[in-house]
Amino acid sequence: MKHIAESTVRRLSLYLRILEEFEAQAHQTISSGELAAHGGTTSAQVRKDLSFFGSFGKRGLGYSVTALAARLREILGLNRQWRVIILGAGKIGAALARYEGFRNRGFTVVGVYDADPARTGRALDNLIVRDQKELEADVAKLGPEIALIAVPAEAAQPLVDRVVKAGVRAILNFAPAPVHVPRHVVHRSVDMALELEILSYALVSRR
Amino acid sequence: MKHIAESTVRRLSLYLRILEEFEAQAHQTISSGELAAHGGTTSAQVRKDLSFFGSFGKRGLGYSVTALAARLREILGLNRQWRVIILGAGKIGAALARYEGFRNRGFTVVGVYDADPARTGRALDNLIVRDQKELEADVAKLGPEIALIAVPAEAAQPLVDRVVKAGVRAILNFAPAPVHVPRHVVHRSVDMALELEILSYALVSRR
Repeated sequence: MKHIAESTVRRLSLYLRILEEFEAQAHQTISSGELAAHGGTTSAQVRKDLSFFGSFGKRGLGYSVTALAARLREILGLNRQWRVIILGAGKIGAALARYEGFRNRGFTVVGVYDADPARTGRALDNLIVRDQKELEADVAKLGPEIALIAVPAEAAQPLVDRVVKAGVRAILNFAPAPVHVPRHVVHRSVDMALELEILSYALVSRR
Repeated sequence: MKHIAESTVRRLSLYLRILEEFEAQAHQTISSGELAAHGGTTSAQVRKDLSFFGSFGKRGLGYSVTALAARLREILGLNRQWRVIILGAGKIGAALARYEGFRNRGFTVVGVYDADPARTGRALDNLIVRDQKELEADVAKLGPEIALIAVPAEAAQPLVDRVVKAGVRAILNFAPAPVHVPRHVVHRSVDMALELEILSYALVSRR
């Protein structure tokens, strides 16, 4: 598959959400202008992004909502279920475990883990927080592809090493620390306090 | 102030966390090597990043932990309190309201708002979820600089328009939709499901 820039992947993901809203409203077609208006971009950009994957539209008729949505799901790897484990059942971990936005996109949380006995055994919707000691055995059994890391900074890297060794191939890190993974593993970081600090810097540097 | 690239701001923010850990342990000095090891970069990069803001270190003695931490706080706008409001008291909004990582960095949540009567009046730690109708009056009274948007996609832009009009100068958007702001307002987006989709794309495109 051709490599797509991250900014393009982001737009494709937004287009798909718009298409799914149109599907829910039983619309048959959508124009590049409609996709652009909802996706915060231009018609020309929409046509360019989509032409990259073949021809979906008919001039003057727009794109088939169902066909384009199916193709985008396939491109983004969303035409399947991904199994996700969450490491850390504190405030962020618990919110992630309950976040419907994941489930709706085909990401199923199959396990939540913590090292703190005050948290293990606790129910988060239909999941029970499990002891971190069970991690390797559970990964072998459940085969999750993705791990979300929601533990304190100093606990992040050792846990990442453990899940990677156990076979997890993608890491989404919410801990406020950089983590390192081998080349065959993909990873991204979301650091909410850091996002605020970047805003803070932007506010003071503009004066 | 000179413009600093976002990647540099991210590293400065990580260096500051490391410095604060060293401060807590009563260390007087830190070497570029120690900052690099904890910040996931190289000594040369650390020296380059810091030289940009003047001379902090003495050759062979390392950097003064206290002086460097103070200077980084000043650069990042963290030597002051920022007032934050949270729009949306669903799972994400509630988790953000309770997130200690914000408070620890000088971000004080001064209000949480929702339009749903099932949520207004509810307590989140020491805050009571307020009716979204109170937004303009509260912004005028409390003067928050930053708004976190944690509402459904379709509700995001109208709320952003309202808080920007009321005087908020920075937006951190957690809604799964692009939002637009005037040029004098800074904004960033964190979309957790989108982060997972980028991982999903990376997983399928590597095969």
